Amino acid sequence: MDAMGGDLGPRSVVPACARFIARFPKAELKLFGPRSQLQSLLLDQPPALRERMEIVCCEQVITQECNPVQALRRKRESSMARALQAVADGECGAVVTSGNTGALLALGRSILGTVPGVRRPALGKSIPTADSSCFLLDLGANIDCTAEDLVQFARLGVEAQRVFSGRESLEVALLNIGAEEHKGTEEIRRAGQLLGADPTINYVGFVEGHDIFAGVVDVVVCNGLMGNVAMKSAEGVIRLIGQKTFTIDKKAPIKRFFGQLAINLLRKWRTQLEPGRYNGASFLGLQGNVIKSHGGASSEAFYRAMLTARECAEADLAGRLDSAMSAVAQRQMGDG
Amino acid sequence: MDAMGGDLGPRSVVPACARFIARFPKAELKLFGPRSQLQSLLLDQPPALRERMEIVCCEQVITQECNPVQALRRKRESSMARALQAVADGECGAVVTSGNTGALLALGRSILGTVPGVRRPALGKSIPTADSSCFLLDLGANIDCTAEDLVQFARLGVEAQRVFSGRESLEVALLNIGAEEHKGTEEIRRAGQLLGADPTINYVGFVEGHDIFAGVVDVVVCNGLMGNVAMKSAEGVIRLIGQKTFTIDKKAPIKRFFGQLAINLLRKWRTQLEPGRYNGASFLGLQGNVIKSHGGASSEAFYRAMLTARECAEADLAGRLDSAMSAVAQRQMGDG
Repeated sequence: MDAMGGDLGPRSVVPACARFIARFPKAELKLFGPRSQLQSLLLDQPPALRERMEIVCCEQVITQECNPVQALRRKRESSMARALQAVADGECGAVVTSGNTGALLALGRSILGTVPGVRRPALGKSIPTADSSCFLLDLGANIDCTAEDLVQFARLGVEAQRVFSGRESLEVALLNIGAEEHKGTEEIRRAGQLLGADPTINYVGFVEGHDIFAGVVDVVVCNGLMGNVAMKSAEGVIRLIGQKTFTIDKKAPIKRFFGQLAINLLRKWRTQLEPGRYNGASFLGLQGNVIKSHGGASSEAFYRAMLTARECAEADLAGRLDSAMSAVAQRQMGDG
Repeated sequence: MDAMGGDLGPRSVVPACARFIARFPKAELKLFGPRSQLQSLLLDQPPALRERMEIVCCEQVITQECNPVQALRRKRESSMARALQAVADGECGAVVTSGNTGALLALGRSILGTVPGVRRPALGKSIPTADSSCFLLDLGANIDCTAEDLVQFARLGVEAQRVFSGRESLEVALLNIGAEEHKGTEEIRRAGQLLGADPTINYVGFVEGHDIFAGVVDVVVCNGLMGNVAMKSAEGVIRLIGQKTFTIDKKAPIKRFFGQLAINLLRKWRTQLEPGRYNGASFLGLQGNVIKSHGGASSEAFYRAMLTARECAEADLAGRLDSAMSAVAQRQMGDG
């Protein structure tokens, strides 16, 4: 656990870790960050839980303002870099951070390395739909993407969604501004042609933003600009729902009793949408499981990201991606 | 009214027109489309309402597959083109269509012409936020945009939001994947510099997808790819809410009484979000008021778009944009 990322830093990370340790009796955690800050927060936790949480002291911290180049040059001893190193060394099965995405991508590539044939790792997550889930990527790691990048993302997304959904046969679509073939940028249209010609991918065409949540396909692929906007706009609406609920809560006392019952239903149902906001995004294409938690990460959000990390580690997601992409690379070399 | 656009065509347009006529006793409508199809639908409406609805017969129709070049070359007698011509000739104050956006943009530019200094008209709409509203543009008319295009969109958006919100002093932001200055594409960063240097625009920096719905700024500017994805993802979540509501509805009979109360609250509250889905988007920068209704336009959606069209026509939005952009063009010539 990189304990120093996000708006709250260790104040959200440490309680999430305690909850995780309590729930999984065999789990062991390493917490990376300045010992002075982490120690006092750990002392608030029950002693039995503390035993399975080890502080790895690192004083250096990466701020939100730090750009990728600075991270690579000057932040090799930061909590984020050291946590990634622990995964690279095989000491940990996955790393969770709510820190700076750009720095994470740069350090992840440098410290863990990429899977064979993957030019650019992508950030993706599983989003709940009406009946099922949809894996959306890239969520902001790559601003400009070529058609070839998008094809790689499709492959990575299919493998990841197999792990998260438990389904084997998955339909893939490209995010676009319309379903017609002439729509979108040249790279999107070209990616559509490449995917359509690939017999190993079940490509079904273009979809639009609303289709992500309709569950019409299993994997939706796009560049990081579009994916980030899609994800955050959806989050914005969910948050707006939260606020509207709150205004109902303060209504006239007479209505309060029935209002409260309604609100309980609402809350339950909001939690059905919220995993999409909170479950953490996976970096796909790195030689190790890296989970990015929500930037404004509450303890709840960090905990959910930890659950995703556990799932990735148990299923050996990074290893599966490595095998799958190596097979593709070999096949392509064979073709060439 | 272009009666022939959208999935339902005249079956959604004619009932919406009847409702509009009934509500606004002085309103007069022209319906463009094949007389054979419109006549029978009009006969279902009360005779008193029919008097103020005139059919302008045009047999040619623009399908969703028609690309902009085909529209310009071969669809000059289509219901969409003829309806735009009626605005150009001053016969109508605004046109509403749920037809093909690309064709609409091409025909709109050709038939109505653009406002001085506007290189590319943009599609924008007012979206409800927690306490107020936010005007988002471009929603899909322009895929690739230069920094200069984005600056123009900001000017158009401010004028439009003045009409829709009734507020004068408005804050403008650029949609990006983070608030930090180094984030995003080169064009977004350059647009930020241009807007920051412009004393006539109250530019406040970058915002992210969720900020659109938080009401932190009055106008959010982006290219058409990002705007389309933001809008449609938000719609997707709202639609998902609709479906989830329905599943609560079918729960065990004991819970049904309280469930129903909750659902009533939900419905009320969903309608507060729905205008964002249904109110129609305005084409800004054309010499005439052009409103694009939702593509999967129900009669309700088309009616809401008509209300937006009425608002634009009454406030002379196109005229206001013309004056505002002409003043900017003159000022820039003076500077040069």
